[in-house]
Amino acid sequence: MTSLSQGDQLADPPPPRLPADHPGVNELFALLAYGEVAAFYRLTDEARMAPDLRGRISMASMAAAEMAHYEVLCEALEKRGVDVLPAISKYASALEGYHRLTTPSTWLEALVKTYIGDALAADFYLEIADSLPDEVADVVRSTMSETAHSQFVVAEVRAAIAKSSKQRSRLALWSRRLLGEAITQAQYVLAEHDELVDLVVSRTGGLAQVSDFFDRLQRTHDERTRELGLS
Amino acid sequence: MTSLSQGDQLADPPPPRLPADHPGVNELFALLAYGEVAAFYRLTDEARMAPDLRGRISMASMAAAEMAHYEVLCEALEKRGVDVLPAISKYASALEGYHRLTTPSTWLEALVKTYIGDALAADFYLEIADSLPDEVADVVRSTMSETAHSQFVVAEVRAAIAKSSKQRSRLALWSRRLLGEAITQAQYVLAEHDELVDLVVSRTGGLAQVSDFFDRLQRTHDERTRELGLS
Repeated sequence: MTSLSQGDQLADPPPPRLPADHPGVNELFALLAYGEVAAFYRLTDEARMAPDLRGRISMASMAAAEMAHYEVLCEALEKRGVDVLPAISKYASALEGYHRLTTPSTWLEALVKTYIGDALAADFYLEIADSLPDEVADVVRSTMSETAHSQFVVAEVRAAIAKSSKQRSRLALWSRRLLGEAITQAQYVLAEHDELVDLVVSRTGGLAQVSDFFDRLQRTHDERTRELGLS
Repeated sequence: MTSLSQGDQLADPPPPRLPADHPGVNELFALLAYGEVAAFYRLTDEARMAPDLRGRISMASMAAAEMAHYEVLCEALEKRGVDVLPAISKYASALEGYHRLTTPSTWLEALVKTYIGDALAADFYLEIADSLPDEVADVVRSTMSETAHSQFVVAEVRAAIAKSSKQRSRLALWSRRLLGEAITQAQYVLAEHDELVDLVVSRTGGLAQVSDFFDRLQRTHDERTRELGLS
């Protein structure tokens, strides 16, 4: 096909691809890697609230999946000549901050956090992946793809809120708070790391459009809360 | 080769193989499966004592490997028509008892426990594996093989005891206590589960030889403590 239809002409041009050696790539991998370790320990902490062995095992399986993703990122960083531990430690305060400010007080809050948090992280990183060269984008996608584990959350949350509209309102508020804290920490990370801003800007076409980026995150977040029956 | 050398004639006959549908097999898999989940949560608890991010990540990787083994056992149990959660819950008290009675009070104790505990479990289950049909033995061996992760322990423990003979004596005592508690709990489990005794007896050739089984565990335990520089 050499001729273009009108639809093709009106479509947005594909985002420009950044080079694989862009310094933002190492920073993105490091941020993701620390995120996996932080998620591992938070999931195992929050599993203490599980009412039964099934819940504890589900949380453990999800936590184990985070470490499998960590290994992928760690290997990718090492291949790029990065000294992993100092590189990832830079992101400790933002990620631990997010988790500290969103410590669940019930098992249902823990479940919603798992689901919403996983999905938010995936949305955030997959948005960026489009502007990355294929081999880099593949690493990001492979560490964000395996969300099947958190499907068990949907059934449990829906069952609980079907029985209690008070529970439903509480969890809806909780879900909004998770988004708010995630965006706060994301903005904090971006403010400190210009290389990461480059990745977002390259995708969105300009610094003024960074707010569009956060709007899109908000919209996909709204879809997740609907999936959970919270809006 | 059809002729037998004198050495072959004098060698012990291979242990008799139990049928794959022996009820002890389901119990063995269930015991192993709960063991993996218990080890997962204990490793993540004990990682709180890690002095640095490297230690925390090493513990998390080991814990994740336990869950990968759990998935193998869970699948094997499901294939055998076993309802997994009730089957494995029977072993909760023995395994949680072992962990409760061997809660480490320092990071070095946690490291030694990881190493000695992993090795003891492997020795115990691999002894039994010889009497199992191949497809069953393969499951046991695959869940006990991946001990490379705990190698980081050896370097750290050896470095610590090289600096302090008091530390060395303390950890040597600790290591002996781990063996004692493991044997106590193993005997308790065997006393409650005749089907499991069958697996051990079939390997050792008779109930009177069960003590040989524990003697062999003691000997391999001694090798591990030497590897750690503790004897």
